[in-house]
Amino acid sequence: MSSTWGNKIRFSIFGESHGPAIGGVLDGLPPGMELDMDFIQQQMDRRKPGQDRFSTKRKETDQVEILSGFFEGKTTGTPLAFIIRNEDNRSRDYAALKSKMRPGHADWTGHLRYQGYNDYRGGGHFSGRITAPFVFYGAVAKQYLLENYGIQIVSRIASIGNVEDEVLDHLSADPLELLKKLKNQPFPVMEEAAGTSMKQVIDDARNQQDSVGGVVECMGFHIPAGVGSPFFDSLESTISHLIFSVPATKAALKGSQANDVFYYDEEGRMQAKTNHNGGIQGGISNGLPLVFRVAFKPTPSISKEQETVDIENKENVALSIQGRHDPCIVPRALPVVESCMAIALLEELVI
Amino acid sequence: MSSTWGNKIRFSIFGESHGPAIGGVLDGLPPGMELDMDFIQQQMDRRKPGQDRFSTKRKETDQVEILSGFFEGKTTGTPLAFIIRNEDNRSRDYAALKSKMRPGHADWTGHLRYQGYNDYRGGGHFSGRITAPFVFYGAVAKQYLLENYGIQIVSRIASIGNVEDEVLDHLSADPLELLKKLKNQPFPVMEEAAGTSMKQVIDDARNQQDSVGGVVECMGFHIPAGVGSPFFDSLESTISHLIFSVPATKAALKGSQANDVFYYDEEGRMQAKTNHNGGIQGGISNGLPLVFRVAFKPTPSISKEQETVDIENKENVALSIQGRHDPCIVPRALPVVESCMAIALLEELVI
Amino acid sequence: MSSTWGNKIRFSIFGESHGPAIGGVLDGLPPGMELDMDFIQQQMDRRKPGQDRFSTKRKETDQVEILSGFFEGKTTGTPLAFIIRNEDNRSRDYAALKSKMRPGHADWTGHLRYQGYNDYRGGGHFSGRITAPFVFYGAVAKQYLLENYGIQIVSRIASIGNVEDEVLDHLSADPLELLKKLKNQPFPVMEEAAGTSMKQVIDDARNQQDSVGGVVECMGFHIPAGVGSPFFDSLESTISHLIFSVPATKAALKGSQANDVFYYDEEGRMQAKTNHNGGIQGGISNGLPLVFRVAFKPTPSISKEQETVDIENKENVALSIQGRHDPCIVPRALPVVESCMAIALLEELVI
Amino acid sequence: MSSTWGNKIRFSIFGESHGPAIGGVLDGLPPGMELDMDFIQQQMDRRKPGQDRFSTKRKETDQVEILSGFFEGKTTGTPLAFIIRNEDNRSRDYAALKSKMRPGHADWTGHLRYQGYNDYRGGGHFSGRITAPFVFYGAVAKQYLLENYGIQIVSRIASIGNVEDEVLDHLSADPLELLKKLKNQPFPVMEEAAGTSMKQVIDDARNQQDSVGGVVECMGFHIPAGVGSPFFDSLESTISHLIFSVPATKAALKGSQANDVFYYDEEGRMQAKTNHNGGIQGGISNGLPLVFRVAFKPTPSISKEQETVDIENKENVALSIQGRHDPCIVPRALPVVESCMAIALLEELVI
Repeated sequence: MSSTWGNKIRFSIFGESHGPAIGGVLDGLPPGMELDMDFIQQQMDRRKPGQDRFSTKRKETDQVEILSGFFEGKTTGTPLAFIIRNEDNRSRDYAALKSKMRPGHADWTGHLRYQGYNDYRGGGHFSGRITAPFVFYGAVAKQYLLENYGIQIVSRIASIGNVEDEVLDHLSADPLELLKKLKNQPFPVMEEAAGTSMKQVIDDARNQQDSVGGVVECMGFHIPAGVGSPFFDSLESTISHLIFSVPATKAALKGSQANDVFYYDEEGRMQAKTNHNGGIQGGISNGLPLVFRVAFKPTPSISKEQETVDIENKENVALSIQGRHDPCIVPRALPVVESCMAIALLEELVI
Repeated sequence: MSSTWGNKIRFSIFGESHGPAIGGVLDGLPPGMELDMDFIQQQMDRRKPGQDRFSTKRKETDQVEILSGFFEGKTTGTPLAFIIRNEDNRSRDYAALKSKMRPGHADWTGHLRYQGYNDYRGGGHFSGRITAPFVFYGAVAKQYLLENYGIQIVSRIASIGNVEDEVLDHLSADPLELLKKLKNQPFPVMEEAAGTSMKQVIDDARNQQDSVGGVVECMGFHIPAGVGSPFFDSLESTISHLIFSVPATKAALKGSQANDVFYYDEEGRMQAKTNHNGGIQGGISNGLPLVFRVAFKPTPSISKEQETVDIENKENVALSIQGRHDPCIVPRALPVVESCMAIALLEELVI
Repeated sequence: MSSTWGNKIRFSIFGESHGPAIGGVLDGLPPGMELDMDFIQQQMDRRKPGQDRFSTKRKETDQVEILSGFFEGKTTGTPLAFIIRNEDNRSRDYAALKSKMRPGHADWTGHLRYQGYNDYRGGGHFSGRITAPFVFYGAVAKQYLLENYGIQIVSRIASIGNVEDEVLDHLSADPLELLKKLKNQPFPVMEEAAGTSMKQVIDDARNQQDSVGGVVECMGFHIPAGVGSPFFDSLESTISHLIFSVPATKAALKGSQANDVFYYDEEGRMQAKTNHNGGIQGGISNGLPLVFRVAFKPTPSISKEQETVDIENKENVALSIQGRHDPCIVPRALPVVESCMAIALLEELVI
Repeated sequence: MSSTWGNKIRFSIFGESHGPAIGGVLDGLPPGMELDMDFIQQQMDRRKPGQDRFSTKRKETDQVEILSGFFEGKTTGTPLAFIIRNEDNRSRDYAALKSKMRPGHADWTGHLRYQGYNDYRGGGHFSGRITAPFVFYGAVAKQYLLENYGIQIVSRIASIGNVEDEVLDHLSADPLELLKKLKNQPFPVMEEAAGTSMKQVIDDARNQQDSVGGVVECMGFHIPAGVGSPFFDSLESTISHLIFSVPATKAALKGSQANDVFYYDEEGRMQAKTNHNGGIQGGISNGLPLVFRVAFKPTPSISKEQETVDIENKENVALSIQGRHDPCIVPRALPVVESCMAIALLEELVI
């Protein structure tokens, strides 16, 4: 419903893969922030296409032009608008695809959602290209979080296909070491051998005219305790809200990793052979059953003795939680989970 | 930041486990909707405590009192406020826990977030009890979705501990059959034998003064295609936003299912032995590394020939996608994932 | 569209004049605030009906019951929900009015807006009674503003009918003197003689089975400079947004002060004899021309020499603004004013 | 707090008078709308500077460049971003004004609000130039409202200084006649003689190196009845919210029309000689008493017999409202009005 995110800082994005420009507006940035334009461009470069054999050959410089809210090298506190011109959009590649729905893409759901008026070239507004404004804002956010709180954010490739990187102990990890090790790799993994195997998996996929998925692990260090809220803006809620807006994130909500095959049956009705995407493509329902799974942790209240802290006396204590508690919350959770689906759908469908 | 969710219908919730009442306000319901109060109470009863040996012994009738927005049996279109009085809150059980932080609970993060002023009894506003208003609204939503779109929402216990229910083929499943089979079971599974084993796992946990987690699978049928948006309100984004507000949903974002042990070290600083909750408890950061994993599906654009539909000619066609595409999107996705974490944190932490 | 106001603190109101209760939810109050319940009740009493011969005889104690977010005398930081039970609602008075549209009331616009399902008794959700939750929240806000910033807010009756209170010099006024003088008057004016005349005007109106309007002047002292924003949340914008939600505020947007007479013409179409309400009743369009007037101040840029301050050198200077400026902005303002009307209507009417 | 307005359609604006460009993002426009670019440019031209002797000599073509959300001449339904390059910004004119606060402008309040980092040239983000994006969106809105509802919006100059145009009977006015008469006038008034006198008033002001204000009357015809809401989004609330964001609208909230003179007193404290702006400049508090007046209409419930309609029997009836009602609501309204001020301030000032 909305291409705007956030309350204290409102982030509005726009653009299509093959339109004149993509960009965003950041409303609510603090005044007087000296933007590190080198750092920002460096982050843009990590995402931009055409860098090596593992990415698309589309060439974009992804140069950011700031139009407002920035004066004498510092943010003014008024809305900061920025644009990135599209340069290498070969629209002719897509003319043939206007009516042929690419499996696994949002072509069909986008066509329905926008009543056939969406810019279909290169996925239009659904394109992964629209994540460039995320990275611009992400770079500004990283700079602020580091300067004001010492927060470090780092990520690695945890797996490609079935090849996994080594397990990391996040509690004992030194974020500066991690950053140093990972940030200069074009293919950031902890274990070099794992990286080599992963690249082989990608090469194999390409040689078979296929593609392959994987998992990213993201870690944040030195985040102050006490940030977030119980309802509805839990930290998990807000992070996952953003994550599931990123094209190609495999909904942890669904089961598999491959394209669904749609076809017309003998009576001319569109049907599907599979439901790998759990009923959602490009963030939009595709008419198949909407399926997701929610894991519930064991009830934390147990009568078994546990170690913990007493914050008044500032001492370590043993605790056996008395009183009445569920040994398993799952059976009672069903109507709650169903309610989440029903509420989210009602918000979209109420007339 | 906000206990209000939704735009077209704003849902505001309130209440603490041991306060006088919990409830909510629904602003934007269509006027003239005849609420099926029996169905609503039946849904409330599915969630309410004290029903069998698998749940807490707290007894609540969970009777809903509607205070406004409801006139002569129908919604008026003005805000509908409802409350549920708390009846069986034995606050004395909790006096001892004021300063002893229960592991795996939001006691400590809540204490920090609300500067020590939160109602700690029974988890206060973090209590699973606050999901009762979800279920009230969920029942209203289900009624509307069924009456206006024929949408059926049904869920089952997919696993408890390591015991899994049978695999379901959602494409061929008949929702009415599913509903009939599942809705009258207090312990809804497809396969009776699996249910028996699951109950045994729960009994074992309780006998060991422990608890156990599991997975719920939720399915929606007859959802019209074309519902949702690419940014930022993808259908996955809005469902997951709500799901991660439900206490005890194991963040699909983190790794394990058990309580973290905090302790004071020799110099009186609080430390943790584990980071099973990935740095978030009750939706709030606990000061440990914030860790989550995001799966990316294989790039859907592949040059290999695939079957698909041509929506203009309404025919089945073979498609080999030419042009330039990434064989694997994962390496370029890292800065985007990091940006999501940075943006979500900045929204909380900007001064 | 929305019964929720505010971002940092979300205020949700609900209730009907003759329903079981009215109330609100305050989400985002700081934790640890010790609410002064005596002060709050005293403010509620200033607004409540049945106090003297100048107000309705409906008797309400307007006792506030807090349901959540308040623990051991202090706010918890979680949503604070409060209700006020309706006690003296004689619904039989209103049965006869179900289909007879009271002139000047929102009976007809409410009927249309809510498709005939609104609770029509006593104006339902449009009743002035719904301002009681405003006053509760206002009292909490006043307490916070005084304790944290020393802000004093005081108001007086500036006129009733054509009788005006004396002119006040706000720059030299002492807010504590003003408060002392005004707060203990049931009929707060500066000049006693003016008050006596005003009361006579009201008595005359009542004796003629009529009513009379007037003007309130509200003053805030010790408000820090630098609060507000240029777009769209100018301090005038947010105050006027709230003010125009209060039933019976005469839209400064329209021209007169009396009821409009609707009638059926010979062909059974509803027509109006007057358009005193400028096309809006109860916040909702009534189908008559929507008319408002906007005053523009003289362009502040003038080349005539003016006195002002130089904030760098901290000195008083004379200033003659050179450059290019409009001697009168009004002619160019027309399309902007029209745009405001068009934008506000589109937000409501877009399909 | 926010440069974004609207829910169903979010309008985000950005830009400074002397920055590279100003513009906006429109998120939520319906797909498939064929924008009438000639009509849009014609509306832009009505507002643009440099047209005749009554406006500033700054020359801007105000050509709109659409960057996204627009494909093959139609809206796509995805965010439509547009920019207007600034061309004739002579920044040198403003260098001298960096520290000298122009009376009546937002120079000082903007300096405080943005901690000295705002772009001060030409008023920066406070400039009337930022209304160009309003007019672009207004033109799109007018086109939609006319095509879908037959709504006509027209305005005129109602007064300049003390010279008033003739009184208009809005009920009997023919909107097409009005439009025809007014839309081709560069100086739109009903009565030619009044227009001539008004122009003389402007010429006189300019000759005296001064400026003059006035009043715009805006009229909307064929607006369907039933549009708007009681709380908080009354139609008056949303229109006034936008109107008071327009620079130079004289707050109907305050009393006079001239610049306030600030000075440093002998002890170096900034003081004011007058409070003509009622404590608000550029939407931001200036530290002087915040003063506004609110008119209340006579209580519409009167026992005197009135004519009205019975919508059930569809007949004209006489009505004498029995029951209990206030002969004058003003004395009870004081705490409500104060609450509006307190609530608006708390939203800004809560920590």
